[in-house]
Amino acid sequence: MDRKQFRDLASPERAREAIRSLDLAPGEETVPLRTARGRVLAERIDADLDVPGFDRASVDGYALTAADTFGADEADPARLERVGEVHAGTAPDVEVRPGECAEISTGAVLPPGADAVVMVERTDRDGEDVLVRTAVAPGDRVMFAGADIAAGERALGPGTTLTPREIGLLSAIGVDSVPVRAKPTVGIVSTGDELVRPGEPLDSGAGQIYDVNSYTVASAVEEAGGVAELYPHAGDDYDAMENALRTAAEECDLVLSSGSTSASAVDVIYRVVEETGELLLHGVAVKPGKPMLVGRLGGSAYVGLPGYPVSALTIFRAFVAPAIRRAAGLVAPETETVTGRMTARERYSEGRLRYMPVGLVADAEGETLVYPVDKGSGATTSLVEADGIVAVPPDVEYLAAGESVEVQLFSPEVRPPRLFGAGEDDPALSRLLDRIDRPRYLAVGSRQGRRRLRDGATDVGVVTGDQVPDETVEIGAYDREWGLVVPAGNPRNIGGLADLVDDDVVFRNRTTDAGLRSTFEASVEDLAAERGLDRRELTEAISGFEIALRAHESPARAVRSGDADAGLGLRASAAALGTGFVGCGTERVTVVADPDRAAKPAVEELRTAIETGEDVFESLAGYRR
Amino acid sequence: MDRKQFRDLASPERAREAIRSLDLAPGEETVPLRTARGRVLAERIDADLDVPGFDRASVDGYALTAADTFGADEADPARLERVGEVHAGTAPDVEVRPGECAEISTGAVLPPGADAVVMVERTDRDGEDVLVRTAVAPGDRVMFAGADIAAGERALGPGTTLTPREIGLLSAIGVDSVPVRAKPTVGIVSTGDELVRPGEPLDSGAGQIYDVNSYTVASAVEEAGGVAELYPHAGDDYDAMENALRTAAEECDLVLSSGSTSASAVDVIYRVVEETGELLLHGVAVKPGKPMLVGRLGGSAYVGLPGYPVSALTIFRAFVAPAIRRAAGLVAPETETVTGRMTARERYSEGRLRYMPVGLVADAEGETLVYPVDKGSGATTSLVEADGIVAVPPDVEYLAAGESVEVQLFSPEVRPPRLFGAGEDDPALSRLLDRIDRPRYLAVGSRQGRRRLRDGATDVGVVTGDQVPDETVEIGAYDREWGLVVPAGNPRNIGGLADLVDDDVVFRNRTTDAGLRSTFEASVEDLAAERGLDRRELTEAISGFEIALRAHESPARAVRSGDADAGLGLRASAAALGTGFVGCGTERVTVVADPDRAAKPAVEELRTAIETGEDVFESLAGYRR
Repeated sequence: MDRKQFRDLASPERAREAIRSLDLAPGEETVPLRTARGRVLAERIDADLDVPGFDRASVDGYALTAADTFGADEADPARLERVGEVHAGTAPDVEVRPGECAEISTGAVLPPGADAVVMVERTDRDGEDVLVRTAVAPGDRVMFAGADIAAGERALGPGTTLTPREIGLLSAIGVDSVPVRAKPTVGIVSTGDELVRPGEPLDSGAGQIYDVNSYTVASAVEEAGGVAELYPHAGDDYDAMENALRTAAEECDLVLSSGSTSASAVDVIYRVVEETGELLLHGVAVKPGKPMLVGRLGGSAYVGLPGYPVSALTIFRAFVAPAIRRAAGLVAPETETVTGRMTARERYSEGRLRYMPVGLVADAEGETLVYPVDKGSGATTSLVEADGIVAVPPDVEYLAAGESVEVQLFSPEVRPPRLFGAGEDDPALSRLLDRIDRPRYLAVGSRQGRRRLRDGATDVGVVTGDQVPDETVEIGAYDREWGLVVPAGNPRNIGGLADLVDDDVVFRNRTTDAGLRSTFEASVEDLAAERGLDRRELTEAISGFEIALRAHESPARAVRSGDADAGLGLRASAAALGTGFVGCGTERVTVVADPDRAAKPAVEELRTAIETGEDVFESLAGYRR
Repeated sequence: MDRKQFRDLASPERAREAIRSLDLAPGEETVPLRTARGRVLAERIDADLDVPGFDRASVDGYALTAADTFGADEADPARLERVGEVHAGTAPDVEVRPGECAEISTGAVLPPGADAVVMVERTDRDGEDVLVRTAVAPGDRVMFAGADIAAGERALGPGTTLTPREIGLLSAIGVDSVPVRAKPTVGIVSTGDELVRPGEPLDSGAGQIYDVNSYTVASAVEEAGGVAELYPHAGDDYDAMENALRTAAEECDLVLSSGSTSASAVDVIYRVVEETGELLLHGVAVKPGKPMLVGRLGGSAYVGLPGYPVSALTIFRAFVAPAIRRAAGLVAPETETVTGRMTARERYSEGRLRYMPVGLVADAEGETLVYPVDKGSGATTSLVEADGIVAVPPDVEYLAAGESVEVQLFSPEVRPPRLFGAGEDDPALSRLLDRIDRPRYLAVGSRQGRRRLRDGATDVGVVTGDQVPDETVEIGAYDREWGLVVPAGNPRNIGGLADLVDDDVVFRNRTTDAGLRSTFEASVEDLAAERGLDRRELTEAISGFEIALRAHESPARAVRSGDADAGLGLRASAAALGTGFVGCGTERVTVVADPDRAAKPAVEELRTAIETGEDVFESLAGYRR
């Protein structure tokens, strides 16, 4: 098909202008005051009544004529006849004439004839008479009608965000429904053939994956002040996708899709945009997000986001959220950005604006440190490791260690972790971390845990065996039993490592980053030495030795699913998955801290969690402290 | 009735402990992932599947056996037979044997036999053959199953607040419903006899006022992470009130009431608390809030808040919001406090903790200034003037001008105004302010506007006539016509000021703070001089001259409602209210700025609004610039 050609990538500013030109303004609507919190007033509201609506006693006491108390004091009180009483919320049924008074409660209507109130504390009763032991002036202890808010006054202006206090003011003037800016409606059309909505069954063999972007972007839309509508995707039914795009364009102020890996899907989007609207730009000089699309889809605005989750959220954060907020009349939350120092030098020289995903961590003094999240943007896990993005201009070749940078958080609710650790994947540690508020732990293996600790980003590292790095502070340690996970009942009757070599057993290993793999390698070396072989000769005899899986349960799961006869793993994993287990030994798991961070409260909390974690160690097979 | 006696006021710490001891913890519930944003995870969630769930091509290209490309380069490509293709979201129907390759799209399943992918850019087609112009290693351009998230890994811990990125991670692992902390349910029982819910008709003559606290506290509860339930009040039907309290106690984790002015209502609360639960404390050494109650009401917690809106919100903010947040598992928002400098010295010496309501304003450099909101806490308007509270410890006698204080904002969404002005109440100004983002304007009259400008809190003052203060910068000015508002058709045939003196006309005046009053007084002086009287002789002849109303429309409204025959006012007010008008002259309204603040963007915006506000002046009768 013929496509509109865009020879050059648009500048980020041009992309922002294009989105702004699409004008999402959704008009206004009226909502009940009770549910108006967080909404933005569309119009000025003037008071239409006086508050209070009557002359109001501001203390408990007696309503009287001030002139009657002239010269009265403790020694020489004025004597007034008590002619009635007035309670809050009732109309006075008494008139106060000279020489008289009426008992009055706070908030009650000043009765006719009275022009002041005396506090009950400055009076005494004497039968039906009241002795007033002070002189009062006209207006004393009276709040006159309209003294708080007068009819005709400006109460609140357009653009005001309604917080509880504004709701209080509107309550006072009797407003029970308010004109507010409507929320822009944002349609999200999922376009990947391989995407399955969470909760539905997944056919991994057919290359299906769960749709990450639809819910992520929908909740980001809502966070920015929009209403998100999901339009169901239909695998490779392109007619259905076209229909979803056209329906979304009719029903929404803005339509978003996120990059499809399918050329056919992109063709459908192109065709619908060009048939019903206009493509304003394709491709922006920004990393990630180069393939971003901006245009009009029928009467709606359209932005095509990149497909990788972190990239989609990055482009949403940088380009789309401000447009939604502007349409909703909201201001950017102050917590949306933080400033911190880079933990390490970061190079970059691609000549276009880069939105670098970063994580945050606090040093011992509570100062914010910023580190690049170096996973490929295709990784979903970097969604949770990355707290936000740093915009690196095209002409900046590197950010120096210690350099101050501004981080645009992915969400105003994002908070840096209180504890940042990396290292061995361990089920006891997972449970111990539950006892700490806001930890971040990357189960990247003992080797990467050592490296990250050395690089200065993490507070703690978790390593096995003798991999404890020098110049660190030990926070705690415990033992775990490792060995071979086998099917329940051990049908192949595997007795240990030697059987992997000698029998036709399909094995699954762990990655070389895992401390458990190092422990296992030591046993492999021992067996090789025993048999007079070199290591490689031995490992080549193990079917599947090179198939290295990432997480502590992965080999055990392969065994449980029948993909393998044995897997390197922990007794605890075997117990959790209900498989058999052949013990080979125990290894020590040690938690160490960067000496500069050992005093951080959360590091101390981890120390305590390990010390007092007997219940965790008892609940996991093969663990002891 | 017998009441449990509390001789001494409890310390604020004791009050906090008492509330903490009531334990609001509401358990957990399961919610759909789609609506889980902002909720707090109740349990750790481990991944139960690998992401991706299969070995996945990470580029468009060809799946092949890496060994086949050994030594290949641009000049000497490897030639492989193309035996099929694999698309994302479909199961491969081809196996790749040595010497073969399969076309593969990004995200598709690596077909059996293949161990790597080569990018399409490094290949050429030659009929059914593919020329691979680079050597690839096993695993190149393949994301292995579980490489992103592995089954068994810790995904998120308990206590995690779910923002879009966490929703993305949970989507990736197919979670579609999540165990979260339930929100504490907070019942709000309204107890004032005189309170009417907004939207219902109000009988001011019977001393009724709109219920401010119910909606204010309900929205503050929701802002803190709770669910608010309103229990209808029933005027002085104490059986109904008791019933509401008992029902709320059964249905809610926490019950709040706000101070009733009625002794009978307090008796009911006392009785129900003592019969069904326990009163833990009555009275806290804090201003405001001394009469605060804390106890148990059936199985629920109970806190009695003060009755004045600002006091209720202050005590809620200081004592109740933290308890609700803790119960909901939420952390205090970072924007809940700001630091600023006091604009003026503030004395205090009551020997108990004071929560002083304050407003915020930015100086020209954007630094935050803090000023006490000096209206009585009974004023609803101070709700909107006050941005938060400053805790002044019992032993602090004064806060110095320039002293740095921490302000606890009433809401994390509270933002200081961009423009802070005070002065004449003027309908044109009300409309011009609509064109400025986040103004705060106090229509306190020209005199108070001058005073506030001199005190250094406000950016601008608005004054009439010759009241322009020295050493200020004029921002703009315009004229308005003033005179006597009379009933439509002018039935009393009032021709001017002299008729007020000579005829039996009921008049309504403005307060002496109003610039309009000063203008009027000049006419009064002129008439007195003309008649050879002193001012007092003349004004005593005007019925109602001393009845001074606060806002620009107040006298006109009194005329419209039949309470007066004539009122001091503006032609614009008469036109708006449909009454008659007798012009007496024009007065100049001048907007001036503090010289230090004249460069603030919002002050410049006001200048522009006046300069370009021809439409406003044309729309209001009697105005011209």
